[in-house]
Amino acid sequence: MSLKLYYAPGACSFVPHVLLELSGAPFEPVLVKLHKGEQRTPEYLAINPRGQVPVLADGGENINQIVAIVCYLDAKFPQHGFLPRDGLARAKGMELLCWMNNTVHPTFTHVFRPSTFAGEEAAQADVKAFNARRYAGLLGELDAIVAGAAAKGQAWLTGDKPGAVDAYALTLCRWSGFAGLDPTTFTALWAHVQKLAAHPAAARVIEREKLQLNLYKAS
Amino acid sequence: MSLKLYYAPGACSFVPHVLLELSGAPFEPVLVKLHKGEQRTPEYLAINPRGQVPVLADGGENINQIVAIVCYLDAKFPQHGFLPRDGLARAKGMELLCWMNNTVHPTFTHVFRPSTFAGEEAAQADVKAFNARRYAGLLGELDAIVAGAAAKGQAWLTGDKPGAVDAYALTLCRWSGFAGLDPTTFTALWAHVQKLAAHPAAARVIEREKLQLNLYKAS
Ligand SMILES: N[C@@H](CCC(=O)N[C@@H](CS)C(=O)NCC(=O)O)C(=O)O
Ligand SMILES: N[C@@H](CCC(=O)N[C@@H](CS)C(=O)NCC(=O)O)C(=O)O
Repeated sequence: MSLKLYYAPGACSFVPHVLLELSGAPFEPVLVKLHKGEQRTPEYLAINPRGQVPVLADGGENINQIVAIVCYLDAKFPQHGFLPRDGLARAKGMELLCWMNNTVHPTFTHVFRPSTFAGEEAAQADVKAFNARRYAGLLGELDAIVAGAAAKGQAWLTGDKPGAVDAYALTLCRWSGFAGLDPTTFTALWAHVQKLAAHPAAARVIEREKLQLNLYKAS
Repeated sequence: MSLKLYYAPGACSFVPHVLLELSGAPFEPVLVKLHKGEQRTPEYLAINPRGQVPVLADGGENINQIVAIVCYLDAKFPQHGFLPRDGLARAKGMELLCWMNNTVHPTFTHVFRPSTFAGEEAAQADVKAFNARRYAGLLGELDAIVAGAAAKGQAWLTGDKPGAVDAYALTLCRWSGFAGLDPTTFTALWAHVQKLAAHPAAARVIEREKLQLNLYKAS
């Protein structure tokens, strides 16, 4: 078996994890316990010097960065439509994927671990609260995108099969609970998350990662 | 003329700007004056609701997100090698491009405009200083990557022609001046920047954008 995915439950590695299950190809999921700091051991840093998941290992090479892994899997399994095939449709699909990756996802990181972005405790508290508000706005934007796709009769966000952007949408929506946001208020997005969660490939990942989708606790 | 690039001098739009000049294809560069807030006019928000450059217009569609634009231009002009062609080489090239885009670039944004990430003035000052230090570390990482490629005898970072990653490296290195960092201390990276700046296509963009490469002022 050549394909190996280093993942952590509930982390952004969910995206390639779902694509691998969708591919039907054999792969080895390798659990990295982030809360135990396993991403900072010398062994793991030899696999990814950036100390993060996901990493996809194939052909003796370790690939980090979600978008790079998604494009690699899409080229390897073109029949699955993980991204739109080409031209402007692909560009718009990539636009959505990259925006999730470089804007929505890092905004959540500010809420989850503000110490990555600020030094003093008061500044960290400010960053956390400030970005929780930004995250609400960004999930609102994503909710509108999902509603727009549904209104056009699209089954999935980038085509007629679930793909990378659908999996990322689930992850980002699920994280809302950690940001003190009720995911069910993002109506179209939440419905889309339920739909993906019911798909057998995603359901297998949710079970392996033991994920609860609604993490919101009213305060 | 169908290709149009919305850009701002010295901004991250430099990356597709250089690729378009490398392509040899006709395109219309459209200047967006960020310091005058032109990115927030209703006209521009109709082109990119996210209020940012770059945007590439083609075939009646407006594409935002650098990485999406790069992949689109690479598919349109495959002979130019803006990214490695395929397989693991492409995955590693995408990995570098995406890391620049989702980690190095946003770290600089914290230094340049901390008010995007924190509310109170004191927290903004903390975020600015904290991320200037992170930026130094990330440029050090990039410097090592450039040195490694040079040691292997590679002319450019992802192949034998200048590509997306080379252009992004110039932009990120140039921004160091705004973060109080002397770009010439990143020896391999700075040499690479000089080399790209001397390439006719990049030189045309540097002239059009009126860019000074070393913005560092010793304090
Ligand atoms: N830029 C990376 C981000 C990856 C990332 O944020 N990984 C997180 C989990 S969602 C992680 O490994 N965090 C552990 C840590 O930083 O210690 C990508 O696009 O793949
Ligand atoms: N995630 C975007 C980032 C684009 C971006 O940061 N653009 C900046 C210039 S480098 C911008 O337009 N800033 C103007 C503003 O935010 O008002 C991408 O990858 O293209």
